[in-house]
Amino acid sequence: MKTAILSVGTEILFGQITNTNTVFLSQQLNLLGFDVMYHYTVGDNSARLAELIEMAFRDCDLIITTGGLGPTEDDLTKETACAALHDELVVHEPSMQALLERAKAYGKPMTENNYKQAMMPSRAEVFSNAVGSAPGMALSEGEKMIICMPGPPREMAWMWEHRVRPYLEKLQTGVIYYKTLRLFGIGESSLETELLDLIDAQTDPTIATYAKEGECSVRVASKRTTKEEAVAAVEAMTEKISQRVGAYIYSYDDEELAEVVSKKLLARNISVSACESCTGGLFSGALTDLPGISKVFDRGLVTYTYGAKMEELGVKEETLTAYTAESSQVAKEMAEGLAKKTGSRLCISVTGIAGPGGGTPEKPVGLIYIGCVFDGHTQVREVRMRNVSRKWNRHYAVLCMFDIIHQIIG
Amino acid sequence: MKTAILSVGTEILFGQITNTNTVFLSQQLNLLGFDVMYHYTVGDNSARLAELIEMAFRDCDLIITTGGLGPTEDDLTKETACAALHDELVVHEPSMQALLERAKAYGKPMTENNYKQAMMPSRAEVFSNAVGSAPGMALSEGEKMIICMPGPPREMAWMWEHRVRPYLEKLQTGVIYYKTLRLFGIGESSLETELLDLIDAQTDPTIATYAKEGECSVRVASKRTTKEEAVAAVEAMTEKISQRVGAYIYSYDDEELAEVVSKKLLARNISVSACESCTGGLFSGALTDLPGISKVFDRGLVTYTYGAKMEELGVKEETLTAYTAESSQVAKEMAEGLAKKTGSRLCISVTGIAGPGGGTPEKPVGLIYIGCVFDGHTQVREVRMRNVSRKWNRHYAVLCMFDIIHQIIG
Repeated sequence: MKTAILSVGTEILFGQITNTNTVFLSQQLNLLGFDVMYHYTVGDNSARLAELIEMAFRDCDLIITTGGLGPTEDDLTKETACAALHDELVVHEPSMQALLERAKAYGKPMTENNYKQAMMPSRAEVFSNAVGSAPGMALSEGEKMIICMPGPPREMAWMWEHRVRPYLEKLQTGVIYYKTLRLFGIGESSLETELLDLIDAQTDPTIATYAKEGECSVRVASKRTTKEEAVAAVEAMTEKISQRVGAYIYSYDDEELAEVVSKKLLARNISVSACESCTGGLFSGALTDLPGISKVFDRGLVTYTYGAKMEELGVKEETLTAYTAESSQVAKEMAEGLAKKTGSRLCISVTGIAGPGGGTPEKPVGLIYIGCVFDGHTQVREVRMRNVSRKWNRHYAVLCMFDIIHQIIG
Repeated sequence: MKTAILSVGTEILFGQITNTNTVFLSQQLNLLGFDVMYHYTVGDNSARLAELIEMAFRDCDLIITTGGLGPTEDDLTKETACAALHDELVVHEPSMQALLERAKAYGKPMTENNYKQAMMPSRAEVFSNAVGSAPGMALSEGEKMIICMPGPPREMAWMWEHRVRPYLEKLQTGVIYYKTLRLFGIGESSLETELLDLIDAQTDPTIATYAKEGECSVRVASKRTTKEEAVAAVEAMTEKISQRVGAYIYSYDDEELAEVVSKKLLARNISVSACESCTGGLFSGALTDLPGISKVFDRGLVTYTYGAKMEELGVKEETLTAYTAESSQVAKEMAEGLAKKTGSRLCISVTGIAGPGGGTPEKPVGLIYIGCVFDGHTQVREVRMRNVSRKWNRHYAVLCMFDIIHQIIG
């Protein structure tokens, strides 16, 4: 079904917020087999909104709007959609009840404005909202349908997941199944080259590659008559892709590298400590993103100065003087010193040049050393990152640390 | 001038990339005094693009396009814009030369496709591109103008800065000057309430408030005949705002809180160390974002377990048992232990409940304690954050740490 996504909100036109709703909905609608033809954004203006709805319906049968469902006077999406599809607003009792309960729970009186949110087109399928005050809706006339969703991304995502997607799935024939593989250590263009014949020959399953912040992902999607057929098609294609680039795949389930590795450490009860120089605590920060990681994570040390490296980790002054702090020797002594101090089964260290300054021809910005002690065995890796920016270098260094742990613990 | 931003690219409709160009251009155009009325996105399809251009010109006099200027067959923006404004494409010699030189520099032959990029509408003002192959252009017919820019954000931003903005500034009468104030510790709605009469009365300077991740900002902008007048108007309004909410303002120059505080520590040569529990290293990570911070940052300790808190910081077992790790007593002992160990002038600690689990009625998720020793004096603060998510709680806890340092060192 040809679809337009219409975002309503003057704040978007001012560039005050990034329109993440549209990206999210585009991905989700494409996955369901809807053809997204246009994105539109318009301010809180009923006449211009009406004009865009008319325009969109020339090509499209479905318009999905976000925003403009609030209680204030400039929230006009529902009213405009209702008029465009020749319906009229009536009180929707369940929405009224929900609003009254919400007001009660917050200890605030219902204002005149609030009642507006309980008015719905008479023919609408109303979508209740468990995480905010504005209900959504789907309204049809003949072949044309408008679906209105709230603007705040958290509410929009909730309503998509629990109300709109199930509703749209019923409209579709066939079943969609997909998988997102995540890869580290291969660039998007190399990945495309490896998969080129599969991508060129694709009909179903479809294969799409994405690049993000030093990582890649591949989405394999199939639409078939039954779920079993779709699953089988996706699994067969995933197997083909895995045969070619399996060494780089760390998740078949769209998880972050840090999350995959942290979960493995936790599941296998591997105690872990970390010491960081150039990443300044970002590795420990990412590791502790996982709730419950305290069961295995003992401590992290950010040893920025020579003194801190010597006192906390027992790095030898001679080693620092002879090789500088950014060296494989220091990375080794850091990891081994940490293992001795903490007794953690896995101890990881990193030192290097994050930039923008501090690089030399021999040791350029982007050069890092990662040390890892696991069950008493030490490994040190040198990584030469392309120097994008201090921020990116530090981010990528953290990914490399997780990647090395992933390889070592398997 | 009423303006539409038109993004061209099927990958945007698939949700494969986030349309950051539109956010950037919206902000920039608004700052120059252009009224952005619409955002449109369309795939690589000439007929639909032509229809959108026609539609946009009903309301707007200026259309800014991004994307579709590449060498391949599906890059059709320039051709479509040219036809819409009744011009014809001719070889643009300087562009041809630039393309030939670029091909030579990369050691690649010019393909037939490449020549396409040197064809420009005969009446166009051509914008050369120093960071990519696609030139941009401005093409007018009567009151109507289309400006075409490349799609890759880096090229687009470069062309805006060096070509399009100067070009548009010449079309505008008057000079724009603006300032962005950043605030912490006040919500956007409270901020609006404080400034309501100023906002309601605004003509010039204009005042716009923005909310982002626990922080707020206010942009004050003025457009006057001379720069001096615009500066004077912005400064006078900034002074008024400062009188009302100055206690919350940490930057008058759109800097991050972490950056402002890190720079102050560095400029005043205040040695600093940190110990973290619930934030897991994110504070040290943010502090070390600043190049050169190694001059004052000694070390960071992520003491996740009781053992780590006792061994690294000398926190007493009795204190942990009596008050739990998430207590003001432990925050105090952490900061003081760190000061004793490192001798840093400023030592900060944090402990608390990041969630999602681990909360109790007395100590709910979102409760944190921050200890700070500065020149031998200890302070401990309790902060009760609203519990949004583990990620947000940890992010906000780090902001609170920087805020407290900011208050203490002044």
